[in-house]
Amino acid sequence: MSRQTDPARSHWAWGRADKLPDRAGRIALGKQLSALFGVEANAHRDPVPLDAVRLRPSRIAPPPAGLAEGWVSAEHADRVTHTWGRSYPDQLRGFAGDFGPAPDLVARPATDAQLTQLFEWAAGHDVALVPYGGGTSVVGGVTYAGARPWVSLDLERFDAALEVDPVSRLARLQAGMTGPALEAALAPHDLTLRHFPQSFEFSTLGGWIATRAGGHFATVYTHIDDMVAGVRMLTPGAGLFETRALPGSGAGPSPDRLVLGSEGTLGIITDAWMRVRPRPRWRAKAALHFDRFDDAVAATRALAQSGLHPTNCRLLDKREAMLNMVGTRHVLLVAFESADHPLDAPIARAVAIGIEHGGRCPKGPRLSDSHSAAADAPAGAGGLWKSAFIDAPYLQSSLITLGIVADTFETACSWAAFPTLHRAVKDAVFTAAEQGSRGVRGHLGCRFTHVYPDGPAPYYTFIVPSTPGAELEDWARIKHAASDAILTHCGTITHHHAVGRVHRPWAERQRPAAFGAVLAAARRVLDPAGILNPGALLAEGS
Amino acid sequence: MSRQTDPARSHWAWGRADKLPDRAGRIALGKQLSALFGVEANAHRDPVPLDAVRLRPSRIAPPPAGLAEGWVSAEHADRVTHTWGRSYPDQLRGFAGDFGPAPDLVARPATDAQLTQLFEWAAGHDVALVPYGGGTSVVGGVTYAGARPWVSLDLERFDAALEVDPVSRLARLQAGMTGPALEAALAPHDLTLRHFPQSFEFSTLGGWIATRAGGHFATVYTHIDDMVAGVRMLTPGAGLFETRALPGSGAGPSPDRLVLGSEGTLGIITDAWMRVRPRPRWRAKAALHFDRFDDAVAATRALAQSGLHPTNCRLLDKREAMLNMVGTRHVLLVAFESADHPLDAPIARAVAIGIEHGGRCPKGPRLSDSHSAAADAPAGAGGLWKSAFIDAPYLQSSLITLGIVADTFETACSWAAFPTLHRAVKDAVFTAAEQGSRGVRGHLGCRFTHVYPDGPAPYYTFIVPSTPGAELEDWARIKHAASDAILTHCGTITHHHAVGRVHRPWAERQRPAAFGAVLAAARRVLDPAGILNPGALLAEGS
Repeated sequence: MSRQTDPARSHWAWGRADKLPDRAGRIALGKQLSALFGVEANAHRDPVPLDAVRLRPSRIAPPPAGLAEGWVSAEHADRVTHTWGRSYPDQLRGFAGDFGPAPDLVARPATDAQLTQLFEWAAGHDVALVPYGGGTSVVGGVTYAGARPWVSLDLERFDAALEVDPVSRLARLQAGMTGPALEAALAPHDLTLRHFPQSFEFSTLGGWIATRAGGHFATVYTHIDDMVAGVRMLTPGAGLFETRALPGSGAGPSPDRLVLGSEGTLGIITDAWMRVRPRPRWRAKAALHFDRFDDAVAATRALAQSGLHPTNCRLLDKREAMLNMVGTRHVLLVAFESADHPLDAPIARAVAIGIEHGGRCPKGPRLSDSHSAAADAPAGAGGLWKSAFIDAPYLQSSLITLGIVADTFETACSWAAFPTLHRAVKDAVFTAAEQGSRGVRGHLGCRFTHVYPDGPAPYYTFIVPSTPGAELEDWARIKHAASDAILTHCGTITHHHAVGRVHRPWAERQRPAAFGAVLAAARRVLDPAGILNPGALLAEGS
Repeated sequence: MSRQTDPARSHWAWGRADKLPDRAGRIALGKQLSALFGVEANAHRDPVPLDAVRLRPSRIAPPPAGLAEGWVSAEHADRVTHTWGRSYPDQLRGFAGDFGPAPDLVARPATDAQLTQLFEWAAGHDVALVPYGGGTSVVGGVTYAGARPWVSLDLERFDAALEVDPVSRLARLQAGMTGPALEAALAPHDLTLRHFPQSFEFSTLGGWIATRAGGHFATVYTHIDDMVAGVRMLTPGAGLFETRALPGSGAGPSPDRLVLGSEGTLGIITDAWMRVRPRPRWRAKAALHFDRFDDAVAATRALAQSGLHPTNCRLLDKREAMLNMVGTRHVLLVAFESADHPLDAPIARAVAIGIEHGGRCPKGPRLSDSHSAAADAPAGAGGLWKSAFIDAPYLQSSLITLGIVADTFETACSWAAFPTLHRAVKDAVFTAAEQGSRGVRGHLGCRFTHVYPDGPAPYYTFIVPSTPGAELEDWARIKHAASDAILTHCGTITHHHAVGRVHRPWAERQRPAAFGAVLAAARRVLDPAGILNPGALLAEGS
């Protein structure tokens, strides 16, 4: 059984089917949201089951080699589960049983030779190939809706840890490994990658590299970019694109940085040399509470500019704190971790910075050492929040059953730009929500997922009641308004969700036209037939 | 008077003419080297003076606009001072009065409009344009020796600090500013870039970005790459290439990373938004001594992997320590600095790590707080070494007068690869030196200039006696052997010296051929006439 057709996985919603609430649970959820934010449910619906989904017939015969060797499939469950990612529109349509753009085939190659066969066959038959890791894209990264037949290229068989170098703390890992799989492979070496995007359970190393995923560390080493020492990508047009595993280099523009963020449009990432580390032994954390959001932002900025480099430095505004059950004030969660030394000094200074800026730390800092009993102390706010963090996407899926539109979007901007950007985003979202089918603002929360000396990465969640049939339009109005506000006010269209097809119009506005032309030229070299993920990152045919 | 024709600057040697020793000083230097390393001088020569240099006539008429407005020159002093960089061969030839490939003209545009005029004129007349910052390239980055006429494009008039954002700690600085100039512009804001490459006094921001310069910080923020928030480059083929100043982004491959390391082949960098910081208040440092090099390496690795992120973490082997007058043992210099907090805890842990690995810290850690009297304490080994560091290039120039070949080369590799690479480099250099005109090994020292969790950046200095007339051949044999050893043993051909023309053959071996093809395609988009710095980074016509 393959990863995606495992019946434990929902064919339309986030993650595991058994983690979605049943009808009674959904009614209770509706009541909670109504009480918290005045967001009223407007429906109680069930998804169209997998077996009842109707697909267009597959338009192409599989490549002979793949067919003979059993790594290409046209089966119903394969095609359904590889149709959509997990953006709001993807889930909404999947929930309704709409799998219109289903792939004609699903391929699961396991070797370079099979990838090369697929490239040649696809180029010869004018077929698009769309790389598929965990299928968790929230930006339309894994669905092709153009005119050509297409194959979902699932990398799940590239699933081995090839080499581990404990001296240099490097591991060569194949691209199809999920977060849990690669952590399990590193554990016997007492090593960990510690890259925990919200999609950690399902998404893959190759997907993280292709989309420049953001992870666990809130400062310094934030993006997967920082953990890639070398990368290996197979291209249709120029063969192998393999870089040396190097701690640093100044030999011209970085080849790794062209692969990072290429979103499957330049080649198929097969594996990478990743920087890993020992599990932390010492931990220290604190939750700082603020009455005023501006004070909380100032404290976060001071901490980001302090050079303390906290592992975690996440600010939740009070609405986000309520949604995540960590209180009713603005909360700054700070944490340090180390495998080498105790953390008394940095956590004390971090708390002092918070207090200097008007914060309170009612519980004081909490320190633990996993070699002593203190590690068994109950988890604080950070722990609670962490499980809410990993499970948050299930909320979005559940709300679809209630006719409520919920989504997240994120950016990064300078500290100086943030106040204006934040106001503009709030205005844009509220105005767009009020123009929607129910005419109410709903909920909008903000947190900082990552912070830098020069600015934060604000992350927004909106929850707005809608009307059956109007959800897509209600969502699109808000999404467009928010994206426009971000671009107008000096943000990036995405700090770590990637571009895909959803963000492409704004990414095209953001990037220099000259750089867009370079990317298109790179594509002509590496993928001259334009078979790889057309329409993601770059317009099809560009 | 322009920067390069300032008579205080030597026309052939590193830096300021008055810092080069006179005849008596050179004789004393020769005796010192003989006593220290058994390297014997074989000549006592004086350079050919600027006025005695004979140049080929300029082969082209200046562009009319530049001529009329006075920003293009064909004057003797301009052409001589813009002929060479400061590689060993460059200095050797300049010393001998050989300025064979002198530029036909020197241009000093001050505006985008003048740059565009220059682009159009050069493309129309098949003239090469070679960007020139401080002229400190040690890899043949500023000299064109091909068939076309060429213009040295000096950016010295792009010399303004355009904007400062103290909240976000960002400054928009023009590319032609030297290290001291930009620090002087930031000082009134109590800010600093703190990027101190060895060439700091003369080299420019644009040069640092174009060559991915390495700076002051030995961990975390090592390359100028890490300090660029956004960059602005003017291209002949696609106009302006300007990125947003962002603390982080995941919107496709990073456009900044194509500019970083482009070595003037894709466009002219006009300015950049740089991440700056307050001057440090607290400082802590320690010098750890080791009898065994392997122990010193192990200590350095442990420190690099500790997560302490020292500002400085430089290992000098005992020969390097002797050359830099910091002792006769292997020395690990560790330092922390902060504008936010005292550094007792991290320096204590760093010293403990050194001692755990067999080191001694005879003087203990030294702490200072610039708000207290302790800051007036005399500088320790680090201070002495720092001035030796900045002045080291003068030694190379001085040795040319004595007929001694001296040069540095550097790389980065994984910790696991280092022992084998180090042995291979030593063997290669010693063998090549013994095959030279004097048949002796001379001196070879090694230091780590930067360290990462996955590996060090080893930096080698060799000093080998030669024979007048044979120096270039002696140098080339050693340089080639060392470069081959680095490439064979998993290093990078350069961690921060750049590619230029000297390293190009090895950079071509190092980078994926597919990436070389992408760079060439990028060049066809951004510089379709191939007028910018032909032969640097990429082969001319590729």
